[in-house]
Amino acid sequence: METIVTRHVNDCSWNQREDRGDLRWKFLVDATEMDSHGLSAGIIEVPVGSELSLHHHQPQEIYVIRAGEGLLLQTGGKIQQVRKDSVVYIPQNERHGLKNTGDVALEVLWIFPTDCWQEIEYIRD
Amino acid sequence: METIVTRHVNDCSWNQREDRGDLRWKFLVDATEMDSHGLSAGIIEVPVGSELSLHHHQPQEIYVIRAGEGLLLQTGGKIQQVRKDSVVYIPQNERHGLKNTGDVALEVLWIFPTDCWQEIEYIRD
Repeated sequence: METIVTRHVNDCSWNQREDRGDLRWKFLVDATEMDSHGLSAGIIEVPVGSELSLHHHQPQEIYVIRAGEGLLLQTGGKIQQVRKDSVVYIPQNERHGLKNTGDVALEVLWIFPTDCWQEIEYIRD
Repeated sequence: METIVTRHVNDCSWNQREDRGDLRWKFLVDATEMDSHGLSAGIIEVPVGSELSLHHHQPQEIYVIRAGEGLLLQTGGKIQQVRKDSVVYIPQNERHGLKNTGDVALEVLWIFPTDCWQEIEYIRD
């Protein structure tokens, strides 16, 4: 049975994976870690000089930039500058990526209308 | 047709309404302000000493505390402390509220799996 869950960002642990380079991420709201559904959220950290390369997935997504500055990569080489408190709505199947162009880690909150991150099929572009 | 939308929190304007007292809020991602669907987000500010009283609504919701400190109000007088970077998952139809117990504004990011905030029917408890 679902109940209200309260966590603190600092208490959620970082994940890394060899095929994802130096990116790291943590799950904040995710059905693999609690009883929840229909919304999931996490934080991804793109280190200085690194990027989350262009990709897309079926569900729409929201980004909220928590720290740092960088570029939002889009289809056809289009780019937009983002910085702390930039908010991005990414439609379904729309190509996007992130490049850190600043001198601190680019930290981004992501939100999906899904039970968990695991069900997102990432397609590299 | 939906395209990627990038905004900055500082460029979104505050809303207030007489029946909501001194609370104010801004929409960040919302189908009433852009071509978007299936996810919506905004920021609510609870001034020092004020509260967003206990209520519920059909959709589940995520809170991310952006600034300040306070109490998450729940059913049966249950409370939990929240502060900057606390994250809350609120199940469907679960009663919740927010009370600012700090000395700065309590600023909270909300996220719904809906097209917009307007379609949320708030039921006061």
